[in-house]
Amino acid sequence: MAAKALIPALFFCFLFSISTISHSYRFYPPAKPCKELVFFFHDILYKGYNRDNATAAIVGAPDWGNKTAVASPFNFGDLVVFDDPITLDNNLHSPPVGRAQGMYLYDQQTTYSAWLSFSLVFNSTEHKGSLNFAGADPLLNKTRDISVIGGTGDFFMARGIATLSTDAFEGDVYFRLRVDIKLYECWK
Amino acid sequence: MAAKALIPALFFCFLFSISTISHSYRFYPPAKPCKELVFFFHDILYKGYNRDNATAAIVGAPDWGNKTAVASPFNFGDLVVFDDPITLDNNLHSPPVGRAQGMYLYDQQTTYSAWLSFSLVFNSTEHKGSLNFAGADPLLNKTRDISVIGGTGDFFMARGIATLSTDAFEGDVYFRLRVDIKLYECWK
Amino acid sequence: MAAKALIPALFFCFLFSISTISHSYRFYPPAKPCKELVFFFHDILYKGYNRDNATAAIVGAPDWGNKTAVASPFNFGDLVVFDDPITLDNNLHSPPVGRAQGMYLYDQQTTYSAWLSFSLVFNSTEHKGSLNFAGADPLLNKTRDISVIGGTGDFFMARGIATLSTDAFEGDVYFRLRVDIKLYECWK
Repeated sequence: MAAKALIPALFFCFLFSISTISHSYRFYPPAKPCKELVFFFHDILYKGYNRDNATAAIVGAPDWGNKTAVASPFNFGDLVVFDDPITLDNNLHSPPVGRAQGMYLYDQQTTYSAWLSFSLVFNSTEHKGSLNFAGADPLLNKTRDISVIGGTGDFFMARGIATLSTDAFEGDVYFRLRVDIKLYECWK
Repeated sequence: MAAKALIPALFFCFLFSISTISHSYRFYPPAKPCKELVFFFHDILYKGYNRDNATAAIVGAPDWGNKTAVASPFNFGDLVVFDDPITLDNNLHSPPVGRAQGMYLYDQQTTYSAWLSFSLVFNSTEHKGSLNFAGADPLLNKTRDISVIGGTGDFFMARGIATLSTDAFEGDVYFRLRVDIKLYECWK
Repeated sequence: MAAKALIPALFFCFLFSISTISHSYRFYPPAKPCKELVFFFHDILYKGYNRDNATAAIVGAPDWGNKTAVASPFNFGDLVVFDDPITLDNNLHSPPVGRAQGMYLYDQQTTYSAWLSFSLVFNSTEHKGSLNFAGADPLLNKTRDISVIGGTGDFFMARGIATLSTDAFEGDVYFRLRVDIKLYECWK
């Protein structure tokens, strides 16, 4: 009798095992983040006159462009290297908790769109390590999702999604991005 | 008796659980794709005269190169930003289902080889979202595999492999790639 | 009685299944590598005079830089394409087991730091396929971790961490990196 009562439980357990195996390399359940982080990053583009406070510089441009002004139309072909402070709030002068370092390039001829590949490099009391990102950033969309493709240190082997939104934009010189990071694979 | 009959089943279930745990962070079973997609993408390089229909432009070149012609030998050092239409068949004039946007660079001095990092950005009735790619593309091989390193929207958290093959090639100006995408991690 | 004895085992088994499911998309246990590899890669930067043996070339530079010398300060803004031999020991002249191909860029204004995205492309008796990398490389740290974001062939779907250390450095022209690769996701 007791044994019979066990049979459904055992079957349930077996099904669970099976479903887990197929999940582990095929379909994953609807996921909740295992870690959430919000940062702001601040980008001041070098325009020929502002080398003292610029955090980013055009290092590649199409034949019709140059390195002290964005190319027309839509900055297409400009490749920018950046070393941007990241802060916990939207104030450029808040103490940075790390740097956003890498590159972006403008890659659409009919509207503003960029492609990003960079790291957030942390060295604060709260976080040590880095998160690596890649993805398309169609600037005029209110929010844009890019991929967290890996991490190191506190973010060892992390994967997830970062949602970008433009928090401020001043001509071609300054922009501030809000980055909402949701990690769905955490190894630490 | 009934209880005894349960013991092998229970043991089997236990083994399954164990094997699943080790799989989840070490060895995965031979995998079948959870999603397969095929696209063509069309790249027309700017060569100084064809700005009206060019979809790609050299934005970085070595000291011995320039931005209106590929560098010699083997285009080594040329970095190209592209905004290429993607289609479901091999016709450049078919309605695009999205854009391939990002960059490639030529990175071999002894033969034609490129390195790609880009997104497929979809905005069709069938797909919304993006897939992000990175990897080496030794052009003269019949097929080349690159990594799907992440995705967003319909392709949330996707990973997989894309197999590239050159479907057409016209001098330095036009090439058409066939991209066979096999996703092995699907979260949606 | 026998049935009763089974209950704790069954419960244990059930718990295992549950924990595995949550691991599969949230927290992973402390991980041991499923594969470990060590390589050296050798980078000789083109400086205007050494085209015969250079393996890398500056292809993007900021407005204040050029393509035959590194920019000042800290090479910030220089983007380099490379085609470097990889060897099993630290001898530049050992038979290469593959190539490291891709790009790095210098992305810090206050110290030496780079951002790497490249592939190791193997074609030896031991390994066929490629591993793809991305991440921040703060050069003055004794060791730096970057992400293995994917792989193909023998390294199908691989993920992991590569630890870089500078094994030799001769002015701006030559450096040798030791790369300790630890894969934590192996599908083959």
